[in-house]
Amino acid sequence: MTDTTPFAPLGMLLASAQKTLTEWLHLAMDQTVRLAVTGLNQSGKTVFITALVHQLLHARQDSGLPFFECVSSNRFAGSRVMMQPDVDVSAFRYDQFIQPLTQQRPSWPTRTDELSEIRLAIRFQPTGLIHRQLSDASTLYLDIIDYPGEWLLDLPMLELSYAEWSAQIFQSCMEEPRRTLSTEWRTLLQSMEMRKADDALLRQASGLYTQFLMRCKLEYGLSLLQPGRFTVPGELKGTPLLTFCPLPDCGEESRGPESVYSIMEERFNAYKERVVYRFYKDHFSRFDRQIVLIDLLKALSKGPENFSDMRVALESILRNFHYGTSGLLSRLLWPKIDKLLFVATKVDHVAANQHHNLERLLNRIVNKPANDAIFQGVEVKTMALSSVTCTRTVVREHDGRRLSFVQGIPKGRNKEILLFPGEIPESLPRAEDWDANRFNFMEFEPPRLIDPEAATLPHIRLDQALQFLLGDKLS
Amino acid sequence: MTDTTPFAPLGMLLASAQKTLTEWLHLAMDQTVRLAVTGLNQSGKTVFITALVHQLLHARQDSGLPFFECVSSNRFAGSRVMMQPDVDVSAFRYDQFIQPLTQQRPSWPTRTDELSEIRLAIRFQPTGLIHRQLSDASTLYLDIIDYPGEWLLDLPMLELSYAEWSAQIFQSCMEEPRRTLSTEWRTLLQSMEMRKADDALLRQASGLYTQFLMRCKLEYGLSLLQPGRFTVPGELKGTPLLTFCPLPDCGEESRGPESVYSIMEERFNAYKERVVYRFYKDHFSRFDRQIVLIDLLKALSKGPENFSDMRVALESILRNFHYGTSGLLSRLLWPKIDKLLFVATKVDHVAANQHHNLERLLNRIVNKPANDAIFQGVEVKTMALSSVTCTRTVVREHDGRRLSFVQGIPKGRNKEILLFPGEIPESLPRAEDWDANRFNFMEFEPPRLIDPEAATLPHIRLDQALQFLLGDKLS
Repeated sequence: MTDTTPFAPLGMLLASAQKTLTEWLHLAMDQTVRLAVTGLNQSGKTVFITALVHQLLHARQDSGLPFFECVSSNRFAGSRVMMQPDVDVSAFRYDQFIQPLTQQRPSWPTRTDELSEIRLAIRFQPTGLIHRQLSDASTLYLDIIDYPGEWLLDLPMLELSYAEWSAQIFQSCMEEPRRTLSTEWRTLLQSMEMRKADDALLRQASGLYTQFLMRCKLEYGLSLLQPGRFTVPGELKGTPLLTFCPLPDCGEESRGPESVYSIMEERFNAYKERVVYRFYKDHFSRFDRQIVLIDLLKALSKGPENFSDMRVALESILRNFHYGTSGLLSRLLWPKIDKLLFVATKVDHVAANQHHNLERLLNRIVNKPANDAIFQGVEVKTMALSSVTCTRTVVREHDGRRLSFVQGIPKGRNKEILLFPGEIPESLPRAEDWDANRFNFMEFEPPRLIDPEAATLPHIRLDQALQFLLGDKLS
Repeated sequence: MTDTTPFAPLGMLLASAQKTLTEWLHLAMDQTVRLAVTGLNQSGKTVFITALVHQLLHARQDSGLPFFECVSSNRFAGSRVMMQPDVDVSAFRYDQFIQPLTQQRPSWPTRTDELSEIRLAIRFQPTGLIHRQLSDASTLYLDIIDYPGEWLLDLPMLELSYAEWSAQIFQSCMEEPRRTLSTEWRTLLQSMEMRKADDALLRQASGLYTQFLMRCKLEYGLSLLQPGRFTVPGELKGTPLLTFCPLPDCGEESRGPESVYSIMEERFNAYKERVVYRFYKDHFSRFDRQIVLIDLLKALSKGPENFSDMRVALESILRNFHYGTSGLLSRLLWPKIDKLLFVATKVDHVAANQHHNLERLLNRIVNKPANDAIFQGVEVKTMALSSVTCTRTVVREHDGRRLSFVQGIPKGRNKEILLFPGEIPESLPRAEDWDANRFNFMEFEPPRLIDPEAATLPHIRLDQALQFLLGDKLS
């Protein structure tokens, strides 16, 4: 399956109607939805988008999307990949990503770390026109935009001064594991000559701060890593825009025009303006719907620090949608986003009877801040799903009890095993709940499809996500 | 030597005068010069800038810069590296580049392929104030900007339509080695379905075109490689901005709105606007002086095709400064550049008695188009120099004739050898002059300094380049 697939069911009708595809695609009722996808904790963004595109390209009434109403009610006429709308954004290479998943010996696609996009055209019959000719069908252009979670977590910086932001970061460094990981950087700050900035020292300080963020990300899977570009620098690598770090408040006298403080403050402000605000203006403000993917199982298995970091990250994300009184974002330009979906991914890594608990747990985490905030027309929802299901649930007797196991091929191995991953708490775990070895989650190899050409990839609740995100636009 | 070196001679005076550096640096007479450095054929840009900064940081009356008048007349008070002015441009890492050159066993620094900059502050006594106090000294801020030669060679695209540009490229593909190197790409174009654009095919065509450019660059050292970002993509990699190529004119009927032609034309225009014009506006139009480095010896040794490519490239560069009647550049915003220096680098790879011929040869190549064009206040000069001299000239009897050899350590080896590199023609070589083995040029290891701490790097005519580029600003 490449992105050159023509509309399968529509193709024949078109031929008989002697009309070109182009004409069909430019009817007056066409509209566009920009769907942004981002993630925390290497949550499987690439696989999610690849699976979503795959399902849409193969959707028909019997294709296993019962909760995606447009498909199940037989109003879905077909879809195909189109030219992407933005010339300066990388292409989301669906063709490259689907290939390893549908091989005889499937493997996961390589993850990406940059902004990319793909456009699909979806042909459907509006509900009001169900009995009329297909020539009344509409087209929905779906732009899916993939971007690093760090960028979304940078947005709240827009509302902070350098002093406020620094204080927040130092606050977060009071607790483990940031406390230990940040020691080297904080020690350097204490011995630094602050009155007169020196390029080599600025580089050393920001280098150690970057190293601290990288360790938070790679060793502990933490999410709240500001400034986001420090861990994903792209072409800004080595520029002064990424050569600063938080500084303690050392009083007026060490803030002269050539001081370390004033130069770093300048760069912090330049970062806000040229990186964060630019992302906001060029991309975020144009999104219609946002999905945030979270590997909640990883957060649980990594322990209370990681779990708490993820909660703070989610709260921080929700703040972007919060219609506050002093919000900079709301003063600038109100984002168009009207649906916000938080998804716990890889739900197939636990047994089916635990899925509901995982969703409830995510709900507990998101709903508290969501209810506290005043939202203006943003519908917030949580869901637990699996983009590509690699296991099945098997019930077995064990020591006289019936237990639900998952069965699948663990990552790097060749044979299926039976695993008891543990039970998911349905509410927020208390301190004493974090026993060692309570959870036993594992990564799996992708499922081996019996006929990769014919079958669609197995999933859990991807159709419900599609219905939430696109249902109204396809009705 | 790091970039934290304080003003050496000025330091003591400053201390006695009880003034801070800051105050000294902000006198009313301060001015800034933005000096752009670029190169063709891997000409040694990084080494040139590193050597130039090194000479300025160590300049004093006896430091071997007799033709740099400000220094030889003892008006140079010192210089140091400052914070760079642009936050979104990479730092030119002088500290990293000088280090391998000044080791006990020196090596060449690793070359860079991106935009970077470094700022020096140069303290000097203006000639009119020679007998007055040092407190009357002025500061010249020298911003050195390093950028890939491909970007400069892109500027003429601004004045071309897609059809005109395509025709130019196909014209250049009529001759070797481009003819052979472009075969695969041109063959694909002939078999391509042009009426309906298909993303995979667009990618394949532009992929083959990029591959053609990369082979021109890496295998043949050619310079005229448009669009320049195709070989140095940076963060534009994978975007539609870099997913096009020249197309033959196939008539009106194959230029419909969804045709390959119209989509590639759209992307060509987007490239011009978002890449070429943006470089022009953000950087090029702010340069005061431009140096273009050329490895003329490499062009000679690679044969007539490479030599002719280099000539076309130089003519194309000169066109950017040409005050034409229909020029888009002149209609937009006249660049400020008032001095343009073409430099043949690595002159130490031939014997001293050949240096003059090398300079005359470069002069012949540049002067013809320079004289044909009408320049508006741009002084054009040519020069042959060596940024860091690795050899010395030794005269020996050979078969009864006195010949000039160069003596140095060839790249990758450990011991000096004597080499007769051949004689440089002083005028443009004729077809019959391109005998096999006429030239025998070689790359050398950097010189081993007896006392790396004390000595400055040996050079040839770097002081004359400094005088041309900065003499008037330091008078």
